Amino acid sequence: MITPSIYGCIEAGGTKFILGIVTDTREVLATLRIPTEAPSITIPAALAFFREGAIRHGPYAAFGIASFGPVDVDRRSPSWGHLIETPKVHWSNIDLAGPFAKAFDCPVGFDTDVNGAALAESLWGAAVGADIATYITVGTGVGGGAMVEGRPIHGQRHPEMGHFRPARHPHDTRFDGICAFHGACLEGLASGPAIIARWGASLSDLPADHEAHDIIAHYLAQLVIAQQALLSPRRIIFGGGVMDTSGLLQRVRDQAAILAADYFGVATIDYDALIVSPALGDQVGLMGALALAQRAR
Amino acid sequence: MITPSIYGCIEAGGTKFILGIVTDTREVLATLRIPTEAPSITIPAALAFFREGAIRHGPYAAFGIASFGPVDVDRRSPSWGHLIETPKVHWSNIDLAGPFAKAFDCPVGFDTDVNGAALAESLWGAAVGADIATYITVGTGVGGGAMVEGRPIHGQRHPEMGHFRPARHPHDTRFDGICAFHGACLEGLASGPAIIARWGASLSDLPADHEAHDIIAHYLAQLVIAQQALLSPRRIIFGGGVMDTSGLLQRVRDQAAILAADYFGVATIDYDALIVSPALGDQVGLMGALALAQRAR
Repeated sequence: MITPSIYGCIEAGGTKFILGIVTDTREVLATLRIPTEAPSITIPAALAFFREGAIRHGPYAAFGIASFGPVDVDRRSPSWGHLIETPKVHWSNIDLAGPFAKAFDCPVGFDTDVNGAALAESLWGAAVGADIATYITVGTGVGGGAMVEGRPIHGQRHPEMGHFRPARHPHDTRFDGICAFHGACLEGLASGPAIIARWGASLSDLPADHEAHDIIAHYLAQLVIAQQALLSPRRIIFGGGVMDTSGLLQRVRDQAAILAADYFGVATIDYDALIVSPALGDQVGLMGALALAQRAR
Repeated sequence: MITPSIYGCIEAGGTKFILGIVTDTREVLATLRIPTEAPSITIPAALAFFREGAIRHGPYAAFGIASFGPVDVDRRSPSWGHLIETPKVHWSNIDLAGPFAKAFDCPVGFDTDVNGAALAESLWGAAVGADIATYITVGTGVGGGAMVEGRPIHGQRHPEMGHFRPARHPHDTRFDGICAFHGACLEGLASGPAIIARWGASLSDLPADHEAHDIIAHYLAQLVIAQQALLSPRRIIFGGGVMDTSGLLQRVRDQAAILAADYFGVATIDYDALIVSPALGDQVGLMGALALAQRAR
C-alpha cells in the first residue's frame, strides 16, 4: 500500500492562523485554529502542531503558506517568504516561510491568501475553466488575488485589491475611511471594521433596508467594473465574512450591471455567472495553502 | 541568399489605418496611412496596398492586425477577428481579419491595438524584462492592454481600460463626460475630444498653469493606482497624442505617487521608472501588428 503524500498547510490571517495537515486528495487529517499573536508566539505554536503531526502522519512533502500581506513572493529576493511593512503590529519584515522550510527540510510554496484562494478555486472550485479569475475577500480587511492562465499573478509585488480607491457614494461622503495608508480605499470603506466604524454594527446586523447595504455594494461593484476594464476576468469570486450578509452578493451583481451599462461583453455577460461565492466555502484558505504546497514540490 | 520573411501589418485605428510591409528584422519596406472610412472602402483599399506589395516583395508569411475595439479575440469563436458593437459608425460586427486571411492565404494574428503595443514594447521597447506590463493610449479614445508573462491577456473579452471609472476631480464635477456608454469613464473624461469638449482646446494648447493639466493627470493617475492594486505591473507605458502634452507624464507620476501614499512596494517603487513613454515611439502600433503576425505564423 502506498501512503499518500501529506502537506503542511497554513492559512495565515491577520486575526487567526488555520493550520492543516492535508493529503494529495484534499483529505484534512488534522487541523487547528490559533489566534494571530506576536510572531514569537504564533510561529512556534504552528511549528509544534506540525511537529506533532509528523510523528503521527509521517514527513511532509511540502508546505504551503497562504498569507495576509503584503508579502514578498519573489523567489529571487533575499526577503522571499517574509511579510513586508504591514499595519499589523509586530509582523513587519517577519520571515514566515523560513521557519517551516528549516524545521521540516522541505519546499515551501508561499503567496498571498487571496492568490492562494484564487488558485484553489481555479483548480477545484468556482473558477475551473476560467482563463482569468479573481478572488476577493471582504472581512477584517479587503484583499484580492488574480489567476491568469493557471498561475497567480505577482508583477511588481502582487495584487493589493483592497487598496483600490473607489469613487465615493453620494450618501457616504462624511466618513473618512479607516485605512492607515489611504483612508478611503476599498478596505478603508468596505471592510468589516469600516462598516462598524460608521454604522455601529456589522452589515448582517443592520436592517435589510438600511442604506449601508447599497453603499457597500456600490463600492464592491466598482471593483468589479475596474477588474472588467483592467483584467477582463471570466469569474469573480467574493468571499470573506462581510459577504455572508444576506443579499449582498446579488446587490453587487445588480450594481455592477448598472455601472457596466451593457458594455463589457455587451449582452453576453451574465452577472450571476460572472460574480459568485467560493465553491470551496470555509476551506478555501486551507485549500489555497494546499495548492501552493503541491506546486512547490 | 535567403530572403527574409515579410509580414502584412495593420494598425487599425478609429480615425486611420496604418499599413506596413515589415521584415522579420523590423525593417519597414513600405507603409501607407489611410483614413478610416466605411469598411467597404477602407478594407478594399488596404487589400489593394498589400496586393501591390506582394508583387514587389513576395508573399506574406503572416498578417498581424492590431485593432481598435472592442474586438473578438477568441480563436474558438465564430466571430473571431471581428469588431464587436462599437460606437464607430458602420464598423460593428465587421470581419476585419477574414478578408486578409482569405486574400493572402496565410495566418492572421489579431488583437487590440493596445495589447499589440504592450506586446511590442515587451519584446523590443520599454517593457523588456517586465513580467507584467501595461500599455495605455490617451488620444481620440483611451484604451489599455496588458501583458502577463509574455502574453497579452484576454479573459472574458480583453482589457478595456478606457472604460475604467475614476473618482471625479473636485474642480471637474459639472462636465458629464462624453462616453456614449458611461459618460464619465476615463475615455469620457480624459480623451482628446473630452478635453476639447470642456475647455475648447487640446491640452497641449492650454497654458501650462491651466487646471486642466492637473485634472487630466489626476484621472490618469487613478488608472495607475487601480493597475497597481489589481495587476501589479512592473512597467506602465503611456502613449497617444494627449500624452505628447509637455509635462503631462510627470504630472501623472507625481499624482500617482501621492495617491499610492507609499503603499504599493513602499519605498521601492520609483515612479519615474514605473511610468514611462513608449520606447518604440510612433512605430509602436505597427510593431504591435508585426509581433502579432510573427506569433500567428
